[in-house]
Amino acid sequence: MIKHYPIILRERSRGYYIITGEVLEKLPELPKEGLLNLFIQHTSAGISINENADSTVRNDFESFFNYIVPENMPFIIHDMEGPDDMPAHIKSTLVGSSISIPISSGRLMLGTWQGIYLCEFRNFPHRRKLVASIYN
Amino acid sequence: MIKHYPIILRERSRGYYIITGEVLEKLPELPKEGLLNLFIQHTSAGISINENADSTVRNDFESFFNYIVPENMPFIIHDMEGPDDMPAHIKSTLVGSSISIPISSGRLMLGTWQGIYLCEFRNFPHRRKLVASIYN
Amino acid sequence: MIKHYPIILRERSRGYYIITGEVLEKLPELPKEGLLNLFIQHTSAGISINENADSTVRNDFESFFNYIVPENMPFIIHDMEGPDDMPAHIKSTLVGSSISIPISSGRLMLGTWQGIYLCEFRNFPHRRKLVASIYN
Repeated sequence: MIKHYPIILRERSRGYYIITGEVLEKLPELPKEGLLNLFIQHTSAGISINENADSTVRNDFESFFNYIVPENMPFIIHDMEGPDDMPAHIKSTLVGSSISIPISSGRLMLGTWQGIYLCEFRNFPHRRKLVASIYN
Repeated sequence: MIKHYPIILRERSRGYYIITGEVLEKLPELPKEGLLNLFIQHTSAGISINENADSTVRNDFESFFNYIVPENMPFIIHDMEGPDDMPAHIKSTLVGSSISIPISSGRLMLGTWQGIYLCEFRNFPHRRKLVASIYN
Repeated sequence: MIKHYPIILRERSRGYYIITGEVLEKLPELPKEGLLNLFIQHTSAGISINENADSTVRNDFESFFNYIVPENMPFIIHDMEGPDDMPAHIKSTLVGSSISIPISSGRLMLGTWQGIYLCEFRNFPHRRKLVASIYN
């Protein structure tokens, strides 16, 4: 049995954010055993799993991705929405748009140091939508 | 209940292609509620979700991935099938080989601007196989 | 029906390893039809699908990822556990932490050249835990 829960995240400006708590708050009680699939409905933001403790990790992510996907690369054509537009599309494919996390004993089976990241690649805050699908 | 649908895509040469329509054509009517998992059975092509409207986005993807994974990097050893061989393997891991997309009301819950991309990393056209798995 | 199988992989030092056999050994007989979701419970290692035959491919992966995510990048702040710490977090997001592989006729539907990779990004051997979730 699968059930979908559309989740609207609060708006955030460019950066990397831990949203584990915000996602769980918007879901009903998790099943005993199951799987949670998260899918982000955007092409200029991504979701990933990474370190949940030290905020410098999220800062370093911002620095690193700007370093390998800088704005104004000479070969970029698509810039309709500004210089952060095409880099955002590229980053979203590098990071990915769906994750599946196992559920056991009614809890996400995340490792000790794992959190769910929202990666916002546009400069200005956007209202991002996830679909959380729980099957059991 | 899970059902698998092997899909053979038409051959395409190096580049990024929207295959949402081609995939849906080869599937039966989607269930009311469910999930579609797409898995590509190759190590020199990838699948991703990205912008479905402006073709310059796909051109920029081609330029960008050639820029960060160029051919003939001095440290590359594996070149049995030519200079596009190892870069194709690397790109396929960067982009990924499986995606899970929620299905609701008999339709893929893609965002307005999202399409399914086939990323063909080899120069010459290859016949690529996907497995589409629908569970509901 | 979903069942989870926690898998502890044998310790490996930095590098890329094919673990298809080791994973299958730790699972019961696969169902006739189903899906295997693999989730790695760490933020400094990743899992991916790539070439299963030529070991130079895995060496080239090591070289390439060290080239695009070198140690001691000047803007990196997070280095509590050493210079391989933050690059490992970045690589794990680039490579990913979950994969879904279809199962048919009691076998993984991998392509001819596909194997499951453990990507160990820390210098020293770590005991890595996966959760294998089988649903059918």
